[in-house]
Amino acid sequence: MAKATPEGWMARALQLARHGLYTSDPNPRVGCVLVNGGHVVGEGWHRRAGEAHAEIHALRAAGDNARGATAYVTLEPCAHHGRTGPCAQALIDAGVVTVIVAMQDPNSLVAGRGLAMLREAGVSVEVGLLEDAARALNPGFIARMSRDRPFVRLKMAMSLDGRTAMASGESQWITGPSARTEVQRLRARSSAIMTGVESVIFDNSRLTLRADQLGLEDGEAIAARQPLRVVVDTRLRMPLAAACLREPGRTLIATCSDDAARRQSLEEAGAQIVVLACDRTGRVDLEALLRYLASQESCNEVLLETGATLAGAMLDAGLIDEMQLFVAPTLLGGEARPLFALPGLARMAQQRALHIDDIRAVGHDWRIIARPDNGA
Amino acid sequence: MAKATPEGWMARALQLARHGLYTSDPNPRVGCVLVNGGHVVGEGWHRRAGEAHAEIHALRAAGDNARGATAYVTLEPCAHHGRTGPCAQALIDAGVVTVIVAMQDPNSLVAGRGLAMLREAGVSVEVGLLEDAARALNPGFIARMSRDRPFVRLKMAMSLDGRTAMASGESQWITGPSARTEVQRLRARSSAIMTGVESVIFDNSRLTLRADQLGLEDGEAIAARQPLRVVVDTRLRMPLAAACLREPGRTLIATCSDDAARRQSLEEAGAQIVVLACDRTGRVDLEALLRYLASQESCNEVLLETGATLAGAMLDAGLIDEMQLFVAPTLLGGEARPLFALPGLARMAQQRALHIDDIRAVGHDWRIIARPDNGA
Repeated sequence: MAKATPEGWMARALQLARHGLYTSDPNPRVGCVLVNGGHVVGEGWHRRAGEAHAEIHALRAAGDNARGATAYVTLEPCAHHGRTGPCAQALIDAGVVTVIVAMQDPNSLVAGRGLAMLREAGVSVEVGLLEDAARALNPGFIARMSRDRPFVRLKMAMSLDGRTAMASGESQWITGPSARTEVQRLRARSSAIMTGVESVIFDNSRLTLRADQLGLEDGEAIAARQPLRVVVDTRLRMPLAAACLREPGRTLIATCSDDAARRQSLEEAGAQIVVLACDRTGRVDLEALLRYLASQESCNEVLLETGATLAGAMLDAGLIDEMQLFVAPTLLGGEARPLFALPGLARMAQQRALHIDDIRAVGHDWRIIARPDNGA
Repeated sequence: MAKATPEGWMARALQLARHGLYTSDPNPRVGCVLVNGGHVVGEGWHRRAGEAHAEIHALRAAGDNARGATAYVTLEPCAHHGRTGPCAQALIDAGVVTVIVAMQDPNSLVAGRGLAMLREAGVSVEVGLLEDAARALNPGFIARMSRDRPFVRLKMAMSLDGRTAMASGESQWITGPSARTEVQRLRARSSAIMTGVESVIFDNSRLTLRADQLGLEDGEAIAARQPLRVVVDTRLRMPLAAACLREPGRTLIATCSDDAARRQSLEEAGAQIVVLACDRTGRVDLEALLRYLASQESCNEVLLETGATLAGAMLDAGLIDEMQLFVAPTLLGGEARPLFALPGLARMAQQRALHIDDIRAVGHDWRIIARPDNGA
């Protein structure tokens, strides 16, 4: 039961929005609560693209009780004619008198239009209630709209001495089942899973959601949408027999290669190919790839699951927004594979500072959530 | 104020014992509470070797009120004639009627003698109240008495990616001032600080207590006792100009070398030398060294502060009892120095399992306390 205060109603709207965590992609997670006479008269959240927005669900539930109501919405109502018509107009038409939104639309081109439409119709509007929590719910959508890039979350499983695999590449399993369930959920909330071709060659990972490993009631429905698999493969070394090419969902190979024959073979094996510019080291330009994923694939959150080379390159390019490190209570020794290759880092003054946001137990392992200091 | 229950009085006795954490070495930390008619009539703790035991302090405080009292003692009262006479006899002479001890004497040769002396005099005796807490207070004394070895605690300062220094050896400072204060306190509770000669050569550490860095009221008094510095130096490569040779306190070099001239030079520079057997790799036999430190130097807790090679050798030999890893929120990259060299560890099945006992914030850093699975 939500507390009968503006913060309490908005907290309830945020809770509703969270129901869309694994399904709303590429749309944002949005929740709406309609309150009239101190009582909830309608609730809604956005389940998936093509279906009704949160406000519409709430208005339908409220019926005539929407007249004179206050709407608490976690994101500015839209003003554009999409598949369902502008939500701002629907709120006006239903007679809602006050709209409280947690945050404006992060797309600077349309931000404020929904609020203006409401105000012009005489609706009282307030912005910013529990804004931090609302922003935390949609880091990827916000990044895509405001930076033309996805939000990149690096996941790594490591030993306590910072190793991700034996020198041979053997790594199954460093962490336990609880950590693996958490990783499945990170995949489920992501638009894409990104890796390097070496990880595909050595680990032959499928990079898929597995309904039975999500530990969620609606696991089957969630796993029906497989995140896009993105393989960074400068020279098209991707094996034609890679397991991920035979899984449901799409595999996109980002390359600098113009080898048409190889490209055709990979396409016949089930891959899609995008040819991108090289960076000055001759490898796929990672920032260009992220911009492509945002603009062409509508990627909000990208989960980076890869080895030290690509992880280090992404870190050095300032392209990692968050790290989730799953730490197993074990030691693999100095010969085992490192977390990050950071070539050129030779002096303490060059060390890469992080902000640690959270450390907590996950089964027998520990999860560290950290943010690189990207000088933002 | 202690709770008026047996557990409450013993908890108070343990709290008193903790006052001796930094001073009682090589004696154990011991506390005693005398209770008569539901009230504390005397308290005591053992401050330092050569001074009165905890029971004697408590009896002196109680005076005639000790007659008919119950004594709560964290360790079995002694039955031997040391500098102060047997405490068991003193309790009998004072008319104490019940003695409750948390744990027996860990020296199997004398365990139970104090209790037997009490019982023979008609004193009621109970053993085992809050025993785990009592054992945790004296891991080193217990290890020395029961295993003829000190308790070895490894301390390392590391980056989040498991690195202790740059490839060049540069390491100041990975962790912040709060972590360094904790390390000073670990030194202060230790009988000895053990390191490898390479650490002395590369870091030229002083390996001393610094009163001003302990952050304790009685820092000056504590730092008056410098832990023994122990350098593992198979071939007597110790620099004559090593800073630690000029510090207060003693530096012991453990070697396999019979180079008499080098030995004399080092002794003239202020070191003491002990020649030990080599192990099958031709290096100082680490278990023999620990036995030497227990038997000849009465070392209880040994703090191991060293690099990957000696840390790995100690781990592989099953000689590390506890690790305290101070983790800084930073990344040093794959070229930087590892935590443990574990040569021969090539498969996941050979990984070294740990038990993590505690993870908590220390300033901006994090401290992980873990125990290796030594197959005990």
